[in-house]
Amino acid sequence: MKLDMLYEGKAKKVYKTDNPYEVLIDYKDDATAYNAEKKAVFAGKGHLNNEISSILFTMLREAGVDNHFIRKLSDTEQLVSAVTIVPLEVIVRNVAAGSMAKRLGLEEGRALSQPIIEFCYKRDDLGDPLVTDDHIRELKLATDSELDAIRQSASKVNDVLSAYFGDLGIQLIDFKLEFGHKQENGQLVLADEVSPDTCRLWDKQTGERLDKDVFRRGLGDLPITYQKLLERLEAAQ
Amino acid sequence: MKLDMLYEGKAKKVYKTDNPYEVLIDYKDDATAYNAEKKAVFAGKGHLNNEISSILFTMLREAGVDNHFIRKLSDTEQLVSAVTIVPLEVIVRNVAAGSMAKRLGLEEGRALSQPIIEFCYKRDDLGDPLVTDDHIRELKLATDSELDAIRQSASKVNDVLSAYFGDLGIQLIDFKLEFGHKQENGQLVLADEVSPDTCRLWDKQTGERLDKDVFRRGLGDLPITYQKLLERLEAAQ
Repeated sequence: MKLDMLYEGKAKKVYKTDNPYEVLIDYKDDATAYNAEKKAVFAGKGHLNNEISSILFTMLREAGVDNHFIRKLSDTEQLVSAVTIVPLEVIVRNVAAGSMAKRLGLEEGRALSQPIIEFCYKRDDLGDPLVTDDHIRELKLATDSELDAIRQSASKVNDVLSAYFGDLGIQLIDFKLEFGHKQENGQLVLADEVSPDTCRLWDKQTGERLDKDVFRRGLGDLPITYQKLLERLEAAQ
Repeated sequence: MKLDMLYEGKAKKVYKTDNPYEVLIDYKDDATAYNAEKKAVFAGKGHLNNEISSILFTMLREAGVDNHFIRKLSDTEQLVSAVTIVPLEVIVRNVAAGSMAKRLGLEEGRALSQPIIEFCYKRDDLGDPLVTDDHIRELKLATDSELDAIRQSASKVNDVLSAYFGDLGIQLIDFKLEFGHKQENGQLVLADEVSPDTCRLWDKQTGERLDKDVFRRGLGDLPITYQKLLERLEAAQ
C-alpha cells in the first residue's frame, strides 16, 4: 500500500508503505546531468529503469550480493527494504571516462590497469566532491570497517556485472553505487538503483553508448537506447 | 658556481652548478595564488622565504627529517641536492581551512580529529586535482612503498613543525610538501620549500595570519607579515 511520499530525488520518488521496514520506489521520467544543470523528461524512462534495475538487482542477489530490492510492483514501481543511506557515491571504474578522465587528463576509453573505486560525498550543494579515506573518517560518513565492506561489495558487484554485461557483448566502463543500512536490522546492503542512469555501458563491437551519456552528450535518443538495452537483458533471461 | 637555468617556477628559479648532484635555488619576489590567477611582486619576498626556508630545513634535518637543503648561499639563493620531484603535492592539515574547507563545506578553523594527508597531482593545466591512492597507482605517480614513506615523513614533519611553531605561539594549520629522489643516490627526501608561501600559520593569541593568505585574501602586507614571522623564528635560534 502506497502511503505518504518520504523523499523525492532527481530520478525517483520514495513512498512509505504500511510496513515500516519496506518502502516503495517510483521511477520518474526525469533525466538530469551535471548535477542537474541539464534536465529533460522522457516518457517511458521511469518504466525502463524500473525494469532494468529489477532485472539487475535480482541477478545480483542470485550472485550473492545482498541488496534492498524485494520485488517489482508495477511499470514504474518497486518494493525495497527501507535503508538509511551511507552518504557516499561509490564509483567503480574499469576504463577512464567521464569526470575522472577529465580531472586527471586521461584519454576517455583508456583501460585501467586495475579497477579504481572512488568515493564522493553525497552533497548536491557542494557538487558531490571526491573524498579520501581521511575525509570520510573526519566527516564520519562511514567507519573504517563499513568502508572495507563497501569496497569489497563494490568490487564483487563489478565482477558480477562485468561478466553479465560482457556475455551480452557490452563493456561495463564504470558505474555508481549507493549503500545503506537496513532499518530492520542494520545490515549493510546495496541500495539505490543499478541502471543506464548510473552505469556507463559501451557496445563491444560498435562502441555505441547504451547509457545516460546519450542524453548528457546529446549522442542519441534516451528511451530508444534504454529500450535496446532492456531487450538485450530480457533476451538473456 | 651558478650555471644555466634549469627551470623557472612560480616562486623560484633553479640553476645548474658545476656539481651535477647539486643545484642552486633562487627565490623570486613573485607571489601567485589560486593556480596563478592572482599575481603580484613584493620586493624582499624572495629574501624572506630563502631565510625562513633555510632555518626550517636546517631545523628539520636536526630533527631527523632528511631533506634536499645543503646551505644558504646569498640573500635569495640556497644550494640543494638535485632531485627528481615526485609529481605530488602532499598537503597535511591539522585544522580545516582553504580548499578542503571549501570543498567539503567545513567551517574554516574547525580542528580536525586527527591530521589529514591529501595528495594532489602536480598538473597546473588540470588545477592540481586531488587524487586517491588508486589514482596515484594508475598514473604511476609513486609506488605503494614510496607513498608509505611519504606519508610517514609528512607525518613526522607535521609533528616537528607543529611543536616548533607551537613554542613560538603559532598554530600550524596546514602545509604543502614536495618530495624527490636525490639524483646522486635515489634517496627519497623532502624537497621544494617550507615557508609562509606553503604553510598556513595563525598566531595562537590573536588569530593573525602569518602566511600567504594575507596576499590571497587581501588581509595585510605580505613582506611585513613574512618579516614578522622571520623575526619570531630568529628570536628562537
